[in-house]
Amino acid sequence: MRANLLALSVLAGLGLAPLATAAEGMWVPQQLPEIAGPLKAAGLQLSAEQISDLTGNPMGAVVSLGGCTASFVSPQGLVATNHHCAYGAIQLNSTAGNNLIRDGFYADRREQELSAGPNARIYVLDKITDVTAQAKAAIEAAGKNGLARMQALETFEKEQIAACETDPGFNCRLYSFSGGNTYRLFKNLEIRDVRLAYAPPGSVGKFGGDIDNWMWPRHTGDFAFYRAYVGKDGKPAAYSQDNVPYQPKHHLQFADQPLGAGDFVMVAGYPGRTNRYALASEFIDTAEHAYPLTIKHVGEVIALVEKAGEQNPDIQVKYANSMASWNNVTKNYAGQLEGFVRINAAATKQAEEAAVLAWLKGQGRTGKAALDAHAQLVGHGRSVSSTRERDFFVGQFNNTPLVASAITLYRLAIEKAKPDAEREPGYQQRNLATIEGGLRQMDRRYHPAMDQQIQAYWLNQYAALPAEQRNNPVLQQWLGGNDAAAVNALVARLGGSQLGSLEERLKWFAADKAAFEASTDPAIQYAVAVMPSLLEQENARKTRAGEALTARATYLQAVADYKASQGQFVYPDANSSLRITFGNVMGYAPRDGVAYTPFTTLEGVVAKETGVDPFDSPKALLDAVAAKRYGGLEDARIGSVPVNYLSNLDITGGNSGSPVLDAHGKLVGLAFDGNWESVSSNWVFDEAMTRMISVDSRYMQWIMQEVYPAPALLKELNLVK
Amino acid sequence: MRANLLALSVLAGLGLAPLATAAEGMWVPQQLPEIAGPLKAAGLQLSAEQISDLTGNPMGAVVSLGGCTASFVSPQGLVATNHHCAYGAIQLNSTAGNNLIRDGFYADRREQELSAGPNARIYVLDKITDVTAQAKAAIEAAGKNGLARMQALETFEKEQIAACETDPGFNCRLYSFSGGNTYRLFKNLEIRDVRLAYAPPGSVGKFGGDIDNWMWPRHTGDFAFYRAYVGKDGKPAAYSQDNVPYQPKHHLQFADQPLGAGDFVMVAGYPGRTNRYALASEFIDTAEHAYPLTIKHVGEVIALVEKAGEQNPDIQVKYANSMASWNNVTKNYAGQLEGFVRINAAATKQAEEAAVLAWLKGQGRTGKAALDAHAQLVGHGRSVSSTRERDFFVGQFNNTPLVASAITLYRLAIEKAKPDAEREPGYQQRNLATIEGGLRQMDRRYHPAMDQQIQAYWLNQYAALPAEQRNNPVLQQWLGGNDAAAVNALVARLGGSQLGSLEERLKWFAADKAAFEASTDPAIQYAVAVMPSLLEQENARKTRAGEALTARATYLQAVADYKASQGQFVYPDANSSLRITFGNVMGYAPRDGVAYTPFTTLEGVVAKETGVDPFDSPKALLDAVAAKRYGGLEDARIGSVPVNYLSNLDITGGNSGSPVLDAHGKLVGLAFDGNWESVSSNWVFDEAMTRMISVDSRYMQWIMQEVYPAPALLKELNLVK
Repeated sequence: MRANLLALSVLAGLGLAPLATAAEGMWVPQQLPEIAGPLKAAGLQLSAEQISDLTGNPMGAVVSLGGCTASFVSPQGLVATNHHCAYGAIQLNSTAGNNLIRDGFYADRREQELSAGPNARIYVLDKITDVTAQAKAAIEAAGKNGLARMQALETFEKEQIAACETDPGFNCRLYSFSGGNTYRLFKNLEIRDVRLAYAPPGSVGKFGGDIDNWMWPRHTGDFAFYRAYVGKDGKPAAYSQDNVPYQPKHHLQFADQPLGAGDFVMVAGYPGRTNRYALASEFIDTAEHAYPLTIKHVGEVIALVEKAGEQNPDIQVKYANSMASWNNVTKNYAGQLEGFVRINAAATKQAEEAAVLAWLKGQGRTGKAALDAHAQLVGHGRSVSSTRERDFFVGQFNNTPLVASAITLYRLAIEKAKPDAEREPGYQQRNLATIEGGLRQMDRRYHPAMDQQIQAYWLNQYAALPAEQRNNPVLQQWLGGNDAAAVNALVARLGGSQLGSLEERLKWFAADKAAFEASTDPAIQYAVAVMPSLLEQENARKTRAGEALTARATYLQAVADYKASQGQFVYPDANSSLRITFGNVMGYAPRDGVAYTPFTTLEGVVAKETGVDPFDSPKALLDAVAAKRYGGLEDARIGSVPVNYLSNLDITGGNSGSPVLDAHGKLVGLAFDGNWESVSSNWVFDEAMTRMISVDSRYMQWIMQEVYPAPALLKELNLVK
Repeated sequence: MRANLLALSVLAGLGLAPLATAAEGMWVPQQLPEIAGPLKAAGLQLSAEQISDLTGNPMGAVVSLGGCTASFVSPQGLVATNHHCAYGAIQLNSTAGNNLIRDGFYADRREQELSAGPNARIYVLDKITDVTAQAKAAIEAAGKNGLARMQALETFEKEQIAACETDPGFNCRLYSFSGGNTYRLFKNLEIRDVRLAYAPPGSVGKFGGDIDNWMWPRHTGDFAFYRAYVGKDGKPAAYSQDNVPYQPKHHLQFADQPLGAGDFVMVAGYPGRTNRYALASEFIDTAEHAYPLTIKHVGEVIALVEKAGEQNPDIQVKYANSMASWNNVTKNYAGQLEGFVRINAAATKQAEEAAVLAWLKGQGRTGKAALDAHAQLVGHGRSVSSTRERDFFVGQFNNTPLVASAITLYRLAIEKAKPDAEREPGYQQRNLATIEGGLRQMDRRYHPAMDQQIQAYWLNQYAALPAEQRNNPVLQQWLGGNDAAAVNALVARLGGSQLGSLEERLKWFAADKAAFEASTDPAIQYAVAVMPSLLEQENARKTRAGEALTARATYLQAVADYKASQGQFVYPDANSSLRITFGNVMGYAPRDGVAYTPFTTLEGVVAKETGVDPFDSPKALLDAVAAKRYGGLEDARIGSVPVNYLSNLDITGGNSGSPVLDAHGKLVGLAFDGNWESVSSNWVFDEAMTRMISVDSRYMQWIMQEVYPAPALLKELNLVK
């Protein structure tokens, strides 16, 4: 917020270092020159020029894993990220007999490093190009129709990406900022051979599990190491034994000065999504309907899998990843709802919006256009709310692995019949490897009996809807009734599908549209039957989106103008593109009489020990702490080795794994979570209680020294004294 | 501990004020000269002489209520104590139509003040006399027999008290310190007309109720005011409309300087009992058997009364006081057990005792005597542990109000047949008023149906014991079986008693032994039947106690000698006599990553609001906080009016209501609780986590100003600006 930044500048001008900075703001890289002053005032010792060079040092070391953030930490392509970001890869390489989730993994020699799977990616930023003018021109040329405008944007996007990706080994992506106000094309080197180099035992890497998730005090060693591999020619290549480690232009160094309370910290990463500029009505719809719906039903699916897993370890292993996400999302939503009450978010949103609307009424034609845009967006929200439950249940059913694979394969066949440039995004030639990877990985995350139980759960929810909502014609026909018998019959019928077999899925991966339409496989028959209505829904969505392309951009421009008129500053909502946030190490007061201190310690890990997962530290850890074997990593200010710490940075999902940099741009840890009270900040920022939780780089080193030793890695990281 | 005190002296010598002092120690007044240095080092601004004058200012203002502590706060006999100390008096004056527990009480004029009941007392210390030599001589003269020695001590005690109490209006009591190492006679003015002057509404006075009991953060306005009345001649007298306010020689003044973190605080009061010098075997017996037994069974009685109270508000009112104690004791024991684990208390006790025993082996004859004494005490413990459950169940049954009144009345008749000086302590002429008061008060705390349920509960526990423990001959005969039918029959039979009627109880209060033995009242018949075995048990207990008189004193002297040999300092276990403890306002770290700050605020009261008891603050309070109507009492350092605060003082039950004095001897609040982590300190002191919880005098004033106004009291307290 400008008010705060100005305040900081004033303090800096007076030569006073502020103890704490209000750290709201997921700044886009283009704003770096603008925030150079505040960065310096907050404690950054690097120059504005150095920090602004996104492909220089240190920013050039920050990479995306697609969904998580990571960073190069050695000249030999070693990449640090969170344990939970590498969890899929760890799981993929785990078997009942060789449980890497439980035992951890360490490759003493490079050739022992394990493939993170065909879909694993490391994206190294090469260039960002502003294409706003071209994008807007392409949309305007399509006329007034929403669908046409959306398709024009898609065509523009595909053209831009295709042109960009003529450079082999690169992946390009178009990002829309502030509802279509700005468009930027990001060009990334796409590394496709990603290998697991190190993961601590799960009792370190996910210590505290779902119980501690989002919680403070925290004691999680949430880190792991990947290594990027490329072909012998130095270019990205699919996994091959002959590949060699990628040599990044820049890599981060572990900090050589101990981090303490109040110190400057900065994070660069890829936050996924925030909704701080959502309409009040969209916020209220989410808080009152969407979140409670998800919490209830995903919660029940979690209970189903939990129960089945107690009987069947195979289900436990195969659904571990899904369960982690489901638990995470339901806990997150519950936390958001709690936070909304605490900060009175609905009233704040409504008051803010009312102020904008009131201001717009005095802004003549521009104001009128923005008011119209606002009304149109409100109308969109209203049109989807009546079928919310039906769409949720049917969508979840269509998303169960077997059904989803049938739908994806058939859609692919439909799209493949078109010239590549005309295909739906996600089904182009460039996406085939990802689709194939997904088909291959399904085996590891799919158990037929469990899948059927979950299918039945969603179908039962659909069948129990009031008659007027039970109007999905295909499902009505396939179910043939609204009772449990009808649901069970449909699930049994789909159970006759062969798509549970990888061989079969890969066969269909190559098949054409006609083959699908002639198939007797029940899942494929369902996919063929349901496709017209899915495409219809997609077009309706695109029409609304196409209309919103203008409306949202217009309204959010008005919000920005209003804020500017109030002396405030605007950064765009997170959209998975690179952002920078900075602030200071600090605790907070969760309630009267209680303060959370910024650092936790080794002794706190031991104090949580119950001997039972998720509080069952390795014996080596317990012994080392009992013997106060701090390995030279203790911080006198806290009397022990720091484990996790809090800072007032503004992050969200997607930032997981982000390197935390100190004032000198050195690595002081990895961001891995927000606190419980912060989750509502996705919608309304709460400065008092929003905190980032990071694993301290000294704890990472301590684990690799004393608990689950990784001598070769320590040497590579220059951490051997 | 001497080590700490020495450390403080060194710091003081260097001119450095220590930030925090280790505050273990319930110092006896005789130690005041000895701790004058440390008191000053910790921040006390008064002279050692002033603080050592127990009947001077400020110490002379501190009084005992018998079970609680209090202090004079005006020249007109106004007494400040805890709401929970005045709870019985508040309850006594409450009816369904005039619920003072809920609504609070304020007497605008003195004549509206309400009698706290015939048993209410205020004890004003007059003199302490050391009578160790005389007591020991009397015991030794009785020879070797334990019972004879105990009876000799009782006779000595009665003689001392009788001689002391020839001065009318005084109450005298003999205290034994360190297991009989020292004896001191305390002479107190006994004020018998005690009236309730002010109590805040229960939603302030017991805000947080049993949920917050022992907890931090805390927000309880646990204060009330009594007034002491005496006859027109200035001498103590029973309640009479003609009585006048007592004019104490000294009274405390509310502090004129705001209390803050780190500040010196001191408490004088009457801590009831600690067991820090218990044998390891006694500790283990308590932790492993006695506490779990009480927690389980009292917990079940609580559940019975809770359930009955839901149906019957009369039961709720009549058992409110008992329920408060039962909840308190079970929660306290559970907290102690938790603390024992946290601080590894059993190992500490065992190691300490082993060190003493090892040291004694090298101490020749003295050592041998102490080792023998230790062995004897261990034997005593072993002899009672086999009948522990039976004794507990039968004792609890005999203690239910109807049965207990029968037993007490019959015992009184037995004792009254003897010359006063030969009677059992507690049944002498001087005790008659107390006994009568109890008989009168029973009506307010007794509900026949509930009493019968509780009788049945304890009898059922007895009946369910293994046959070899079910050997109480009287109960066996009265039950006539071991099943529910037998229990119900006995309860029904006792239900025929007339002792539920006050008139009847007062009739028996005057009756002689023969009348009891001829009675057909079933409760009296049971009392007559059970009396021989009760007297037998009493004699056995006295025999053990008489033996322990020497053994405990010998062993504890050895412990003191050992500690002295280690450079440590010894204060005696609490024994309900006057003690002084001092230290500083400070929070603590309950666990890694969490700090409890020393003060809570008005806003914290509001944050806990649920609208439902015990978190249902008065509307006036909520409104005042919403309007930030701090009444000039806010502390800039915390941005609000302080409510409760923590300090590292060493208190226990009996200290409740103790005035907290600042460095200048001014009143800064009332102690009302220890924190959850401190309760285990009754056995093993935990310096890191033991904290006293006090209500801030500014919150008391704020409540009387803004929430439940008491203008006349504020004027009397000199708090009107």
